[in-house]
Amino acid sequence: MERKELLRRVDHTLLRPDAAWPEIRALCDEAAEFHTASVCIPPSFVPRARAYLDGRVPVCTVIGFPNGYAATAAKVFEAADAAARGADELDMVVNLGWVKEGRFDDVLREIRAVRTVTEGKVLKVIIECCLLTDEEKLRLCDVVTRSGADYIKTSTGFSKGGATEADVALLAAHVGPGVKVKAAGGIATLADAEAMLRAGADRLGTSRLVALARAEGVRP
Amino acid sequence: MERKELLRRVDHTLLRPDAAWPEIRALCDEAAEFHTASVCIPPSFVPRARAYLDGRVPVCTVIGFPNGYAATAAKVFEAADAAARGADELDMVVNLGWVKEGRFDDVLREIRAVRTVTEGKVLKVIIECCLLTDEEKLRLCDVVTRSGADYIKTSTGFSKGGATEADVALLAAHVGPGVKVKAAGGIATLADAEAMLRAGADRLGTSRLVALARAEGVRP
Repeated sequence: MERKELLRRVDHTLLRPDAAWPEIRALCDEAAEFHTASVCIPPSFVPRARAYLDGRVPVCTVIGFPNGYAATAAKVFEAADAAARGADELDMVVNLGWVKEGRFDDVLREIRAVRTVTEGKVLKVIIECCLLTDEEKLRLCDVVTRSGADYIKTSTGFSKGGATEADVALLAAHVGPGVKVKAAGGIATLADAEAMLRAGADRLGTSRLVALARAEGVRP
Repeated sequence: MERKELLRRVDHTLLRPDAAWPEIRALCDEAAEFHTASVCIPPSFVPRARAYLDGRVPVCTVIGFPNGYAATAAKVFEAADAAARGADELDMVVNLGWVKEGRFDDVLREIRAVRTVTEGKVLKVIIECCLLTDEEKLRLCDVVTRSGADYIKTSTGFSKGGATEADVALLAAHVGPGVKVKAAGGIATLADAEAMLRAGADRLGTSRLVALARAEGVRP
């Protein structure tokens, strides 16, 4: 795949807890320069990034992130608030404790509640594959498909493992036709990125790809 | 210090993203048996733990956790919601990006906003020492003192480092008389716990101390 094409699949991401505006602004500049799919940034920076980018790049943020165990009401509030303040895309984390208890109806209800307050926005659902059995991944493919979300996403990047080709292929094979796959976490090389796309990912969450492409000589 | 006395300083903690109710319930049982200061658990489990414990042990939960970069409105909503659903104590994380930008007035305003909706509850403010310079720690001692919060807390346990004796002593020496210190993150032995208390901690956040005390032969 052409490098520029590949960069268009990237949610250019900076979610370090101590990232400050100068770094977020630089991320926005790179995203605009290389036409990435979005910038993925902390909720507290959404209004500033929105104003700064002024429509040049969609703004993505995270909900109930990274542990997923915020109360449903808090996730719904956070999502509605982020959407109202300028987020175009929202990456929410499922409640993994509920997954472990087999409470998939509650997981579905929660995603739908977030979906309801984010109509017209892109909603991605992070299932944190590294903490799940394959059976749990398949149950969540079904839940996410029924929820009305746009994407299923492999990982937060804050747990013990990130995206794998095997997981991307598994999710891509089991979600419904309306749901795409975002691979995130540990995508450290252009070869990793290409492998994820080949395995069935539509979107990539990564902080490193723009710098790698630039180092390879890719110009905007 | 007597072991039983030491356990009374412990927020008996389980904040793993995939912890499910059977584990949380077992934590509650241990906390009730050994008379710990609280159980510290994810927000989504607060109502169940509250009902299960029925006043035997205070329920502590976390706000804007662990990355601290949720929007202020979302932290305020989450804190009010947790308090309404039965949390007695709330451990919130400061916005570390703002700290790095020197926006201490915004950090203070945010803590006060959470304080306002949690009157009568114990409020602890996590500053995540491992990501801060000593100067930033001192500025935050001042901010937390002025905020009306009850505790300053060293760490989330989700970043690259936990509590150190040096940080506990530094915080204890620089907060006002109304503010106590909670040491959390990486407290793995009874000797660690004693060292933190000697350094000036009033409260300890740890998952391991009850099991260690039991293994040592301490009976409830």
